[in-house]
Amino acid sequence: MKVDLNCDMGEGFGRYTLGVDEALMGQITSANIACAWHAGDPLVMNQTVKRAKQWGVNVGAHPGHYDLQGFGRRVIELTPEEAELFVLYQLGALYAIAKANAVELVHVKPHGALYNQASANEALAHSVATAIARFSRNLILVGLAGSALIQAAKQVGLPVANEAFPDRAYNADGTLMPRNVPGTLITSVEAVAANAVRLVNEGVGGTPIDTLCVHSDTTHAVEMAQAVRNALLANGVTVERMRAY
Amino acid sequence: MKVDLNCDMGEGFGRYTLGVDEALMGQITSANIACAWHAGDPLVMNQTVKRAKQWGVNVGAHPGHYDLQGFGRRVIELTPEEAELFVLYQLGALYAIAKANAVELVHVKPHGALYNQASANEALAHSVATAIARFSRNLILVGLAGSALIQAAKQVGLPVANEAFPDRAYNADGTLMPRNVPGTLITSVEAVAANAVRLVNEGVGGTPIDTLCVHSDTTHAVEMAQAVRNALLANGVTVERMRAY
Amino acid sequence: MKVDLNCDMGEGFGRYTLGVDEALMGQITSANIACAWHAGDPLVMNQTVKRAKQWGVNVGAHPGHYDLQGFGRRVIELTPEEAELFVLYQLGALYAIAKANAVELVHVKPHGALYNQASANEALAHSVATAIARFSRNLILVGLAGSALIQAAKQVGLPVANEAFPDRAYNADGTLMPRNVPGTLITSVEAVAANAVRLVNEGVGGTPIDTLCVHSDTTHAVEMAQAVRNALLANGVTVERMRAY
Amino acid sequence: MKVDLNCDMGEGFGRYTLGVDEALMGQITSANIACAWHAGDPLVMNQTVKRAKQWGVNVGAHPGHYDLQGFGRRVIELTPEEAELFVLYQLGALYAIAKANAVELVHVKPHGALYNQASANEALAHSVATAIARFSRNLILVGLAGSALIQAAKQVGLPVANEAFPDRAYNADGTLMPRNVPGTLITSVEAVAANAVRLVNEGVGGTPIDTLCVHSDTTHAVEMAQAVRNALLANGVTVERMRAY
Repeated sequence: MKVDLNCDMGEGFGRYTLGVDEALMGQITSANIACAWHAGDPLVMNQTVKRAKQWGVNVGAHPGHYDLQGFGRRVIELTPEEAELFVLYQLGALYAIAKANAVELVHVKPHGALYNQASANEALAHSVATAIARFSRNLILVGLAGSALIQAAKQVGLPVANEAFPDRAYNADGTLMPRNVPGTLITSVEAVAANAVRLVNEGVGGTPIDTLCVHSDTTHAVEMAQAVRNALLANGVTVERMRAY
Repeated sequence: MKVDLNCDMGEGFGRYTLGVDEALMGQITSANIACAWHAGDPLVMNQTVKRAKQWGVNVGAHPGHYDLQGFGRRVIELTPEEAELFVLYQLGALYAIAKANAVELVHVKPHGALYNQASANEALAHSVATAIARFSRNLILVGLAGSALIQAAKQVGLPVANEAFPDRAYNADGTLMPRNVPGTLITSVEAVAANAVRLVNEGVGGTPIDTLCVHSDTTHAVEMAQAVRNALLANGVTVERMRAY
Repeated sequence: MKVDLNCDMGEGFGRYTLGVDEALMGQITSANIACAWHAGDPLVMNQTVKRAKQWGVNVGAHPGHYDLQGFGRRVIELTPEEAELFVLYQLGALYAIAKANAVELVHVKPHGALYNQASANEALAHSVATAIARFSRNLILVGLAGSALIQAAKQVGLPVANEAFPDRAYNADGTLMPRNVPGTLITSVEAVAANAVRLVNEGVGGTPIDTLCVHSDTTHAVEMAQAVRNALLANGVTVERMRAY
Repeated sequence: MKVDLNCDMGEGFGRYTLGVDEALMGQITSANIACAWHAGDPLVMNQTVKRAKQWGVNVGAHPGHYDLQGFGRRVIELTPEEAELFVLYQLGALYAIAKANAVELVHVKPHGALYNQASANEALAHSVATAIARFSRNLILVGLAGSALIQAAKQVGLPVANEAFPDRAYNADGTLMPRNVPGTLITSVEAVAANAVRLVNEGVGGTPIDTLCVHSDTTHAVEMAQAVRNALLANGVTVERMRAY
């Protein structure tokens, strides 16, 4: 058994910092870097790419809605064409900053509301997947395990990584409970670590898990990531960077 | 004698249109496409790339200040690091949209105040040139003939295109008169066409001209571009796409 | 019988112009001025206030979603608190520019998706109405005739104006057909003028109409507004500025 | 002797927090609230107004450049008309949120680069002062002691508050040393407290000081503000809210 550990990073902006990115780099294997639409800016993107390179962590694009004030968590309705081009734009922006640092992008993971909307909406999922495939068929699309996003990626010929969230409560059908439902954000370090092991062993709704998401911006973020990693290792799970196969 | 004809394009935004891009595609050889910071948006960028491809026109990036309301024409002071990363970001964004359309970028031309500031400020010019060179040493940097931008590009090993503006008045030292000086914007079609021929024949301040800028957003834009093109041809100047040598 | 004629105005932005505001001022009685979130900027707001003052046209705020690229027409989900404060912010911004010109605001009409969402969503309607009432109970809330927005305004003690759109197709229940439904935008000048008279005479779904919306950004906008006005006058309807009663 | 203690507040944005506003409310007498152009958003503005009201602290507008990523600290060149309307827009936005909370604005203090530019540039200073005066002649303009901003305010008939910065180094002519000069930001609590007393006793360049600025976003911000306040009180200086006379 093996799994990738991914984390949303580069979510500071200008004068604002967010998350303990530096401290988490040693725990994770893939960094999803915000592309300045819902968080991040070109300087933060550059700094985060450099850090990931230094730590041997995969670099991926984390495109989101154009909604800095809402942190990309508000539902915004886009046409398929808009979604496709908005993802391409952000992907290219990070690509250039990575290239300038001699770093190759490995994956793309949509952020927040875009991720959630595309997990359930086939047309939107298809747009996101198409954007990535038109840019490169070597980029792994990271999506909610078993979701429309994963199906769309497979249809357009992209490698995929089925993702699970050990600190979030799931509905019976394998979808995430919304953030605003009380109790959906699990804060106990022990519970999250146990969930991580269970998710890797059992999958979600019949889908095996390729990558687990840990967070850099929560209380006890470092402790949490370490506990997840240690629990995985203690249960015979290898923590290893995702790769396109 | 030969010269490239470039034009700033893709300057619409959302509900707003600007310029007669379509009508000008047959007159020019290089399109500088706005990258959504001072004008343009991902949909407009995509549409403009498609048009340029269809007409066999070079596609280049036209990065500017983050100032949509000011159309990138306000002086904004940036640190060298900011300028470098802001150019990289925009360049990558257009690169991705071009790549998705199987189009390669040929050149980069900074826009408006960024162009003017970098023409005179060596540190800023170096940042802009470095951004491009870190992305690709095959991209031609288009800059004001003989300016700091051209010098910086040469220093970092980029191919360059010395640019002149047949519809703008010049100072004796080869710099452009500011837009707000009365008379600096030449509106007579005949005068502009004659300037074009003279600029190609004589250069500016001793520097031969590689590319002339025509505009898509002025009154009589199409008539003006045609007159420039016809005057060049009538005077034995070949109008030909710029290329990296 | 009497009715107000309102028009969305001040929808240019920076270098971009939109609509034939000046030409329409003589036809209408109320101008809904964009507040720089979905369209407009402080300079355009100022110019539009001055024009309205000069023509004796009512000035009202036209707040929308923070979505310039989408022109405020994309559905964006907001919390009630966000909606309330976003409306207050925009309302105050226009208030200051109007006050500096010795002009008093008469009304508030939400724009685009915010208008449509608040027409159907009671919580959102309540937030919009509350924002206005907390600022001033003399401001008329202009909303879709008989909608949740009108109900909410009455509940918080605001004067209201029931609005109808002579150039849009309606569903049987008095709601507007979405813009993307073919045929929902009526472009025949005669049909629109006839609709205007009918809407004033019959109301919509049992609700009498206080104000009709004409557009400044459509083909034949001036001709259309004149035709509407003339048809109303010819049928004995007085065209008169709305007022809080 | 008496002096006001002001502090820039409400500088968070969306998901981002900045400064220890709550902890400082008990130390200061005037809060300069960011208006969502260089920092802040309508929700943060509302929260900050409520806090200031609760603590009996003056509420003032803190307009800045439209430059969230640069925190309003980048020099941006504006025309006088732009500066005037940009200040009016922001002032009105805060006015509405304050009015909805039954709070009256007492003062206006430009932020960052706008403050610095207007301190030295008479035309810009005049635009800022005119914007405020057109809105209300009861608002106190807070500006660098003895600067062009203060002169302009007096010329247009506004009450003024001459401001000094106990944690910043001054040039001999009473202007602030730029932030990027090493040593210009004084970090010793004792030195800052001593400066505060000296500035009140001696003025700056012959100008008596009406208000001292303390910061909420520096290390030891609370300790610093307390030390300043205590040093003032210990030296017989009354700390009292500024008021228009």
